[in-house]
Amino acid sequence: MSIKTIERKVLQKNDEVAGENRSFFERKGIFALNLVSSPGSGKTSLLEQTLKNLESRAIKPAVVIGDVQTSLDAERLQSFDIPVIQLVTNGACHLEAMLVRDALTDIQPDQTELLFIENVGNLVCPAGFDLGEAMKVVIASTTEGDDKPLKYPAMFRNAKVLVINKTDLLPYVNCNMDQLRENALRINPSLTIFETSCVNGDGIDQWCDWLARQVKERTWQNVSG
Amino acid sequence: MSIKTIERKVLQKNDEVAGENRSFFERKGIFALNLVSSPGSGKTSLLEQTLKNLESRAIKPAVVIGDVQTSLDAERLQSFDIPVIQLVTNGACHLEAMLVRDALTDIQPDQTELLFIENVGNLVCPAGFDLGEAMKVVIASTTEGDDKPLKYPAMFRNAKVLVINKTDLLPYVNCNMDQLRENALRINPSLTIFETSCVNGDGIDQWCDWLARQVKERTWQNVSG
Repeated sequence: MSIKTIERKVLQKNDEVAGENRSFFERKGIFALNLVSSPGSGKTSLLEQTLKNLESRAIKPAVVIGDVQTSLDAERLQSFDIPVIQLVTNGACHLEAMLVRDALTDIQPDQTELLFIENVGNLVCPAGFDLGEAMKVVIASTTEGDDKPLKYPAMFRNAKVLVINKTDLLPYVNCNMDQLRENALRINPSLTIFETSCVNGDGIDQWCDWLARQVKERTWQNVSG
Repeated sequence: MSIKTIERKVLQKNDEVAGENRSFFERKGIFALNLVSSPGSGKTSLLEQTLKNLESRAIKPAVVIGDVQTSLDAERLQSFDIPVIQLVTNGACHLEAMLVRDALTDIQPDQTELLFIENVGNLVCPAGFDLGEAMKVVIASTTEGDDKPLKYPAMFRNAKVLVINKTDLLPYVNCNMDQLRENALRINPSLTIFETSCVNGDGIDQWCDWLARQVKERTWQNVSG
């Protein structure tokens, strides 16, 4: 039996193009990450710290940024000498593979080894849309509390990496790190977890070590999904 | 010309039921608020502080809470002797009017004067779904930064009230309150703005004064939408 709904057709078209994007990334040797989180978790700050750290590592990154409105995030990254493409969804709550595909000609793919796709700030909808990335990285800030993996499980289930950001605020917020890790691992036992602060730089080195290793070893080519 | 799409039909059905909900609230004299925000902005903490404050004001509240998964938020409010209904959307990114309607028989409508509908944590999708509320209240936490109104304009445009929460964290985060207010008012010049901290209680009185006034004066019956 074959049931066709509009929704299913949209997802099917998205998945087809995501598959093409994934083939493109693998052919060009680009490690593509889909960064997902709530609004204000610090995705762009994490990118700023990451790009700064990567400058000394001879890795060539590029960034595609999705926002409902404005190009504020892309402007924050203009000081880096790398391709930064802003996608504006005009109200839509997530990036789709077609929109990402349209940006790929602008990222200088032959010079890019590591592509950060910063999704719209939304802990629900982007979980269901494959962009062709090697993996999703979910960023959760300590200010959001330790219950988010349980309340928004799809996002944590579909991610391979969790970055717990804003650890500098731990003394001031009601967030138990052990509980947050436990909740995240209960939803997805194979999550790789980093803890970072973009204010004091804690954990940025470890996160960038891991990124550099992925780019060099290309193990991600077998784990995409 | 009449164009029918699935999406439009869903919205049309939602709007019909939202209209019925609104009539119900007006008939029963219930001031209904739709609380919308990012995940982790402190909606449930604000509700805890608000319900505590209202206990001395002889106002009868009830709460309907929407979450993608779990009943953690409703459990946090169990100590209050009021109706608390948990709605689980099972993955959906926003509440719809039909789901809220189904909860209305359980809130003891003849004893309720003030209904808080806590939406799913999502700064995008709930903006487009009328639940029949008198007004939307958007909660933005200082930890999310001051640029959110510009990046998620629909939510701030469709709200009548903005509660800036977690003001106790201002010394530790990169959020300029003047800029946040200016950005919010640029999107929606008629926003009523409160500043609150659920840690030290700042601003809770002013917010509850305003709530109590709305319940007594019923001016909201002419501003609904």
